[in-house]
Formats: sequence, structure tokens, C-alpha cells
Amino acid sequence: MANIKDIAMMAGVSVTTVSRVINNHPYVSAEKKEAVRRAIKIVNYQRNINAVHLSTGKTFLIGVVVPFSNHPYFGLLVEGIANEALQNNYKLVLFQTNYEENREIEALTMLKHKQIDALIICSRICGWDIIDDYASYGPIILCEDTRGTNVSSTFIDHYKSFSKALEYLYNKGHQKIGYSLGRRTGTNSEKRETAYRDFLVKFNHPFDSNYIFYECFNFEDGEWVVQHLKNMRNPPSALLVSSDQVAAGILTCCKKQNISIPNELALMGFDNQPIAKIMNITTLEIPLVEVGRKLFLQAIDNTTISQEEIAVKLIERLTV
Amino acid sequence: MANIKDIAMMAGVSVTTVSRVINNHPYVSAEKKEAVRRAIKIVNYQRNINAVHLSTGKTFLIGVVVPFSNHPYFGLLVEGIANEALQNNYKLVLFQTNYEENREIEALTMLKHKQIDALIICSRICGWDIIDDYASYGPIILCEDTRGTNVSSTFIDHYKSFSKALEYLYNKGHQKIGYSLGRRTGTNSEKRETAYRDFLVKFNHPFDSNYIFYECFNFEDGEWVVQHLKNMRNPPSALLVSSDQVAAGILTCCKKQNISIPNELALMGFDNQPIAKIMNITTLEIPLVEVGRKLFLQAIDNTTISQEEIAVKLIERLTV
Repeated sequence: MANIKDIAMMAGVSVTTVSRVINNHPYVSAEKKEAVRRAIKIVNYQRNINAVHLSTGKTFLIGVVVPFSNHPYFGLLVEGIANEALQNNYKLVLFQTNYEENREIEALTMLKHKQIDALIICSRICGWDIIDDYASYGPIILCEDTRGTNVSSTFIDHYKSFSKALEYLYNKGHQKIGYSLGRRTGTNSEKRETAYRDFLVKFNHPFDSNYIFYECFNFEDGEWVVQHLKNMRNPPSALLVSSDQVAAGILTCCKKQNISIPNELALMGFDNQPIAKIMNITTLEIPLVEVGRKLFLQAIDNTTISQEEIAVKLIERLTV
Repeated sequence: MANIKDIAMMAGVSVTTVSRVINNHPYVSAEKKEAVRRAIKIVNYQRNINAVHLSTGKTFLIGVVVPFSNHPYFGLLVEGIANEALQNNYKLVLFQTNYEENREIEALTMLKHKQIDALIICSRICGWDIIDDYASYGPIILCEDTRGTNVSSTFIDHYKSFSKALEYLYNKGHQKIGYSLGRRTGTNSEKRETAYRDFLVKFNHPFDSNYIFYECFNFEDGEWVVQHLKNMRNPPSALLVSSDQVAAGILTCCKKQNISIPNELALMGFDNQPIAKIMNITTLEIPLVEVGRKLFLQAIDNTTISQEEIAVKLIERLTV
């Protein structure tokens, strides 16, 4: 790729002269101007915008960290972020981490090096100390409750929403309630577990670790949950499933095995993804596109730190 | 944000001295070195990587243009691209265009300005003349048949695959076959229409424009297709649906209206998305994750131009 020195050499002028022509400065003779322009045309020289950034300090790029780029949960968040980016003339740099810490640190390093203006982490793997450290270099926006810190976020109160769902199932007559989650670790998972344990204490039920299913992300994961349930002597009568995709998988598998929903097993999903509507799954609606939109707006606002809670809504359908 | 001038002022040295310290040049006194380092520490100055890029000419960013960021078809393509980017230490810049030409031109302009190393366009809106023009600035990779040009691509032969699907339906006894598509325009849509018209000529069937449904992208679009079919005097007995999502929508709506599938209406989807498996939809499988993977590898290979055709596979299930 030709650079400014090559142009200068081709045109037989100094680098300063080339720079002046490119930036439309005065005091360059018509002859030299013409020589530079000809040279530029020949090598198709493009003013390197990366250099231009040095003066403005802005890239109009916002980083977005997702563990998986094709999971519908993150798909809807990214849709909201991307729609708002479009409105505001920003572009997104997508980081898929597969929950590997070093991938997330790469994204944080790009923020540190000013290659992006801000970083939205849809689901983090790095510890709070690391996040806090990098937050001094530029805005980091999280999708979890960060109240009491100086990091902005748009979040669901997972303690509150899990408690709400558990009480709903309880009021529908269920005493033996299990749940399935994605990761075992992570702030959101911890809050959900606390809500579950508090619920058991409140209604004086014993804790049974067999009632909890981890690593459930996709439709296919529903299959082993059902296999597991079938082998249990005392299976739960209701399941709170932290993803509509997994709930759809459980529902499909139960149909094949003639397990009646909701009579033998009540199912409650999360998110209100299109699949929940298609399959008539009772679910807790999280307005993910709206959450994405707000995350983006927080990312480009580098004057205020804000934490915004988004309310969830119970959608009653046919699986409870 | 502090820049090199601020550092120089704080440390009481010249800009050149600051630059020398940052780049570990010799000939700087220990005292000045210390003053610069202290100043840098105070303002958390980060060597701007955008400046570093000027010397290497590489950004390790690959642009990805999609019309919608949350459609499962593009979701799977982006998943393939992102997985391979992860392997090769590249990041992706995502452009959502909503099929607006100026959005696509923004992406092309970033390529022109060397802000990205290459651009993958998953579905384009710009005319060929524009693409061809920008292709002189850097690698543009398309997801359509570009044989005979100097633009790389990984593609499905949509003429061939549509013909294959039509013949399959014909051999199953269907004479009145309709189809639904996303955009009316676009290379892929044109190839499909040609295949359809050639099929009609071959089997001596009249062309009926009522048998073609455009602007069908999502599950919800299935509903109006069914409404439309119900109002037709002579409806098609089979539909070739260019998206499993739409096929799932048609199937769900038919079930509600007691239209028997495949007896009253045969349905054939495209892509073999998870929803097709869930709902037992006969479909033409396109290995989209694999296509995405190949698109990425073509993007980072700037020595060869290649056009790779990906074969589709008929998956027989219960809707034909």
C-alpha cells in the first residue's frame, strides 16, 4: 500500500507538500499541486482515516461482546444495539468470546488503545476487578445490575424476576419446582440461585441439587433435561427454564415421549422469544431489543453514569 | 482525552522527547524519561493504536454487511464468520443496512479508507458497478455467484437448487407450484425466478403471478401468505418457501385453520434451520455456518481470487 512518502517521491516534492495538498492548505504552487494529484490518482492513495482519528480521538466504533453470535437471546440484544447504532452513525465491532477470558480482555484492550469509543459487554466472563480496571480507559456498559458502582448498565433484576416466576408456579399449585440455567457462574446465575434458595426457605421446602440443570443454552439441551427427569424417582412438577429455546426443546421432547404439558410437567420460559409464541410457552418477557437500544445509548453518552432497570412481564400461555 | 502535547506540557519537555520515551529511543536523559513516565501514568495515556496502524497498514478488522442482524439466516452466516475470525485473531465490524444503499456505501467507504482489511457482504443492495469500483481498494467477498468477475465469493447456485426443489415437488405429483421469496430484486431472487420460469416452460404450465409471494422474511409473514391462499380460487398445491422461518409460520397458521399439510398444501423450506428440524419441515439444507467460515477465509486471503460453490442437500421430512 502506497503511503505519503511514496506519493512525495513520485511527485518529486516533499512530504509536507503532499500533506498540504491533501488537506487543501494554501501556499502550494499549481504545478506541484497537479503533480501530487496525479501521483495520488496513479496509486489510488486513500487518506488513511486511522490517521485522521488521531486528531479527533473518536472512532465511531462501539465494541459489542457476546459469548455466542448466533444465540437468539444475544441476537435480539445485538439487533437493538445495531438499530440504534444505525440511527447514530456508529458501527459495531463484534467480539465473540465463547466465554473465554482472554477474548474478553482483547476487547477491553481495544478500548484501552482507543480503537473503539466504548464497549458493551452483553455477558461477561472477566472478574469485576478487571472490568473496574479497564473502566478508567473508556465507557464500559454492562447488561447486569451494577448499582453502587461507576459502570453504566441496563439490566433485569434477576432476583426479583426469578422470585416472581417461582411464586407464580407456587400459586398454581406447584411445590416441587426445579430450574435450568446456562452458566453455573456469573452474576445473573448467582442471583437466580439466591432467589431459589430464599423461596425454598420461605415455603419450608428442602433443597435438592438434582432439581437444578446447568449448561442449558439451546433447543438440543432440552433433550437431556427430559432424559434426566425420566430417571428421577421424585421429579419436579414444574420447571423454570432460563431460555425459551431450551423450554421449546423440553416441550418437543415431552410431546414425543407422551409426557403431558402442563399436567405432568409445567414449563415456564424466559425472554418471550418468537419460539415461545409459536409453541404457546408461558414465559417471562424481557424486552431484549429495547435493552440493546438502551445499552447503545449509554455507550455513546460519556458524560453520565446510569443504571437502568428493565421490568419483566409474565406472559401466560399454555405450559403452566 | 490527553494527547502527546498534554503529556509534553505536564512533563515540561518537548513533544519529540515524549515520542522518544514512548518508543524507547535512546538519547533521553533519565530525568526527562522519569518525568514523561510520571505524566503518562497520571493521565493514563495510551499509545493510540490507530497511529500504530499507519506503519503496518493492517487493522485486523473485517467488515461484515448484513441487511438484518437478527434474522436466523444471517445469524448462522455471522456465526461461521465469527468463529473463524476468533481462530485467526481478527475482529468483525458489523454493518446492518436494512437494505439501504447508503449504509452499504458507508461500509465500502471504510474499506476504501483502510479502516477495515476486507469486506464481506452477505447480501448486497448496491449495483455491480459500485461493488466493482470499490473492489480496487481492498478485498470484497460476496455470498452470490461471481464467476467470471475478479471478486471472490462463496455461493449457492440458486438456479440449480431451485430447479432441484421444483422437480422434487413435481415428482411428488404437484403441478401447481408457487413460491415465496424475501426481496423481489437481487441476484439470487432473479436466478430463482428464471429457474421457476424455465420449469414452467419445460412442463408446459402457464405462469401465474398470484403464485409468487414477495417480502416474506419472518415467521409472521407466513400468516398473510395463508390468508392469501385461502382467498384464491385456484390455489397452488405446493409452495417452495425460501426461508424455514416463513415455512414454519405458514405451517403453524395452516394448523390453526385446519388446512392439512401436506395433503392440502405441501411445503418445502430452505436452509435447514433448527426450526425446520423442530417442526419436521422438508427443506433444502444450506450449510450456512460453513459458508460463513469460507467467506472469512477468502476475506483474509488477499493473494487469490476464488469462487466456491456450496452444494445444497434435500432433507425429506413431513411437509411434502
